[in-house]
Amino acid sequence: MKNAVNREIPEELLTDGREVYQGKFYLDSKVYQKAAPKARPFVKPVDSKVVDSIKAACEAIGVRDGMTISFHSELRNGDYVGNMVTKVLVEDLGVRDLTIAATSLGDAHDAIADYIEAGYVTGIQTSGIRGRIGDVVSAGKLKTPAIIRSHGGRPRAIEAGEVHIDIAFMAAASSDKQGNSKGTGGKTNFGSMGFGMTDPRYADHTVIITDTLIEYPNVPCSVDAVDVDYVVLVDEIGDNTKIATKEARVTQDPRELMMAENVANVIASTPYFKEGFSFQTGAGGPSLAVNRFLEDRMLASDIKMGFALGGVSKAICDLQDKGLVGHIFDTQNFDLPAGQHLEKHPNHHEISISQYANPFNKGAFVNMLDFVVLSALEIDTDFNVNVITGSDGVLRGAPGGHPDTAAGSKCCIIVTPLTRGRMATVCEKVVTVTTPGDCIDVLVTDYGIAVNPLRPDLMECLDNADIEHVSIESLKEKAYQMVGRPEDLQWEENVVAVVEARDGTILDVVRQVKPLVLD
Amino acid sequence: MKNAVNREIPEELLTDGREVYQGKFYLDSKVYQKAAPKARPFVKPVDSKVVDSIKAACEAIGVRDGMTISFHSELRNGDYVGNMVTKVLVEDLGVRDLTIAATSLGDAHDAIADYIEAGYVTGIQTSGIRGRIGDVVSAGKLKTPAIIRSHGGRPRAIEAGEVHIDIAFMAAASSDKQGNSKGTGGKTNFGSMGFGMTDPRYADHTVIITDTLIEYPNVPCSVDAVDVDYVVLVDEIGDNTKIATKEARVTQDPRELMMAENVANVIASTPYFKEGFSFQTGAGGPSLAVNRFLEDRMLASDIKMGFALGGVSKAICDLQDKGLVGHIFDTQNFDLPAGQHLEKHPNHHEISISQYANPFNKGAFVNMLDFVVLSALEIDTDFNVNVITGSDGVLRGAPGGHPDTAAGSKCCIIVTPLTRGRMATVCEKVVTVTTPGDCIDVLVTDYGIAVNPLRPDLMECLDNADIEHVSIESLKEKAYQMVGRPEDLQWEENVVAVVEARDGTILDVVRQVKPLVLD
Repeated sequence: MKNAVNREIPEELLTDGREVYQGKFYLDSKVYQKAAPKARPFVKPVDSKVVDSIKAACEAIGVRDGMTISFHSELRNGDYVGNMVTKVLVEDLGVRDLTIAATSLGDAHDAIADYIEAGYVTGIQTSGIRGRIGDVVSAGKLKTPAIIRSHGGRPRAIEAGEVHIDIAFMAAASSDKQGNSKGTGGKTNFGSMGFGMTDPRYADHTVIITDTLIEYPNVPCSVDAVDVDYVVLVDEIGDNTKIATKEARVTQDPRELMMAENVANVIASTPYFKEGFSFQTGAGGPSLAVNRFLEDRMLASDIKMGFALGGVSKAICDLQDKGLVGHIFDTQNFDLPAGQHLEKHPNHHEISISQYANPFNKGAFVNMLDFVVLSALEIDTDFNVNVITGSDGVLRGAPGGHPDTAAGSKCCIIVTPLTRGRMATVCEKVVTVTTPGDCIDVLVTDYGIAVNPLRPDLMECLDNADIEHVSIESLKEKAYQMVGRPEDLQWEENVVAVVEARDGTILDVVRQVKPLVLD
Repeated sequence: MKNAVNREIPEELLTDGREVYQGKFYLDSKVYQKAAPKARPFVKPVDSKVVDSIKAACEAIGVRDGMTISFHSELRNGDYVGNMVTKVLVEDLGVRDLTIAATSLGDAHDAIADYIEAGYVTGIQTSGIRGRIGDVVSAGKLKTPAIIRSHGGRPRAIEAGEVHIDIAFMAAASSDKQGNSKGTGGKTNFGSMGFGMTDPRYADHTVIITDTLIEYPNVPCSVDAVDVDYVVLVDEIGDNTKIATKEARVTQDPRELMMAENVANVIASTPYFKEGFSFQTGAGGPSLAVNRFLEDRMLASDIKMGFALGGVSKAICDLQDKGLVGHIFDTQNFDLPAGQHLEKHPNHHEISISQYANPFNKGAFVNMLDFVVLSALEIDTDFNVNVITGSDGVLRGAPGGHPDTAAGSKCCIIVTPLTRGRMATVCEKVVTVTTPGDCIDVLVTDYGIAVNPLRPDLMECLDNADIEHVSIESLKEKAYQMVGRPEDLQWEENVVAVVEARDGTILDVVRQVKPLVLD
């Protein structure tokens, strides 16, 4: 069955009331029954919930084949907890048919790829899927299709009961003996624990895994003791120097800087650029560089930002310290200084990813967003964006908050070079749709700007500001002239991943990649 | 059927798996399915949730006969919202068979008594029941038995699905257009909104009622916009000068001061009185005065309090300002200075009543409490306490956090004069059991101290500190010598109120009072 972004969705996936994507606001106001966990009451006071090991916590809870466990990904490439827990469950406790529902999985979790190949881990639900896990899933080695969700789609699925977490294993930088825990105050700080805040409220059991046990009470905290069953003290929860990736550094590339400046020009040309406007940008090179140019425009027009949203890096904290940003609402930190800033600045607030982006709550923060600047692996002439599959069709990306902020914001700007290496970024048909085109408003490339025809109002803004813009088709043609039209990828029949829209409908599927045959 | 406190519970109340009280930790570790609301997703951004009136909000939501609505009671005797909303529902919208599930109902809600008498309000679920509502319920005019719950029992019942709230109407001192709201930052501040924080997460609909609409975003806040459907701006949510009652003032009565000093002596004699101890006291005269004497003991022994818990008055804030209290965990404010203190002191924290006292979460704050000092209307020789019915059998009190802190704490001390007017406070059998005797450790009266025989360890502590103590029977005899043995109250057959234990089992029932006949 074809969906609203023209993708063929296999009928066999449309079970249990699951539908295909039908537009960004299709399920608006459709009342749903929220889910809730089974919980064990601590009526009798227990002075300490600390147990000796992850194994001891699992044994006390009781584990079983086919269970679903969860992790959060605030430690990014430096996370140790995902592997540590999976190893105990598979190797020490012999659990089979594990489903891992994580906020993201990446290079830090290559070890889990082994458990997928060996058939112990049979389900993956995640936003990001990179590294060896991406390779083995794309090669068809996971028993069930991976489910890819956005940052808002994940808490939606949990709160709507589509994912039921048996045990949430939450890495915490610090915890007390009762489980009051957070991403700061320890030896391996990662800042905001926004990605980990929802799970303990919906999981049957929650185990806090920390390397810093501090005196009771550890408050204010991100996860409350009232939702925690056990606390485990380990040597190290991760290596927080690996949180910041090279993409998170501010670019010096003149081409990227030029694009960033053009993005700032587009922003400044719209009616949303006024006192108290709100803004989010990603961690990628040109996206991050927008902060610098935006600062100039704000100073020039004597305009301050009301709030900045999303994953937070030092750049936006610096703007707040300069008095140019009212509030920061922070779901994760892209670098260590941002995490330290969260601890110190009273108007730098931690929020959960459900508050941030869940389309099924009564107004996520993304709904109040004026501008978001996002990157793309590919964007097609329908403005559909792909951020999950590489040009070889292999899973190596993350929708993250991309589809959520694009849908919620008044003006969503994609910034991307026209080509990367020998590949056209602007193309006829993206490999995988991860953000539907009706959510994207403007595309800024190094070879020109295109406005979505759905937004004639924005075209007029750009015209009034003498900002040149062209059709997205002409950008695609230009790209194809430069690097050639890409050959179609070759796929097997079987679906290896389902890309859910943020509202739970199916946006696209990813099939197994045919092995490359050199002839 | 007789329960563990020897009360006869009518079989007809024991439906739907409801059981009689069987001891304070009877349901420990018994896994239960948590409840969840039906919610309406705001997928499409809505810039403002402000509607013109309470009526408009109710119409937008849709009201029906037999629905359950909720209020919180942080404005105490100064609350206007309960009456305002009930009037709209009954008089403007013609709703019948309303159940009001409030955290407390008191003198401020006399108008609701009229709707009970007229048969529009047919169900009451509350902790406190005072004023005319108490009179009409005791006179058998409410169609169904009122359900009386403790502060921990109420969120337990909501979270366990025993109470399902259709619409939560939450008074807020300030809100923004999205519904981020709290008890401070407005013109009618009441401080902590701990009593109102749970309902929006479990009610199908939430309406914020405020008299101060402030600029978005109103953060940090107590109720998050993600749980709010509508916001209504009214002229006045209440009169906050009525929050503090005369009982909340520090006593000058030498008899009360003597009792307070004895309480402090008892505390100081136990092994729990050590660096980092935790403490809660009520708002009554002698309870509140304990703070003063405790300060002396703390200074003398160079001991600081780790945390103070519960309803908070200026006295404990002053202790924190002097550096003697690490943290305050605050569910409600008994006076305006305490509310102002919450806004300013970083270690004065707002907590929900679920975090505070819900026996079915994974460790409420009361479970970490060393000492609680509480008052009583009556206490019997089994140490059972009554704080709900007067000596005439009429409902005029509130369990509040009494049963929760008594059950959770290591040392629960009741402080009460031996007699009040012509009535014995220490008696053979309390009119109504609201806190079971196995939760009470020490009784301090103006005629002597008694220790529960369940606590020989505490008897030894008192002996070692040369604190004289006697049997509770001897105190009862003394009381009866002074004021005479009270005549048994005369009751009708019908049950007008069910007193739930904090775990949802039935602790006692209150029957209709026989009209007094002068012969």
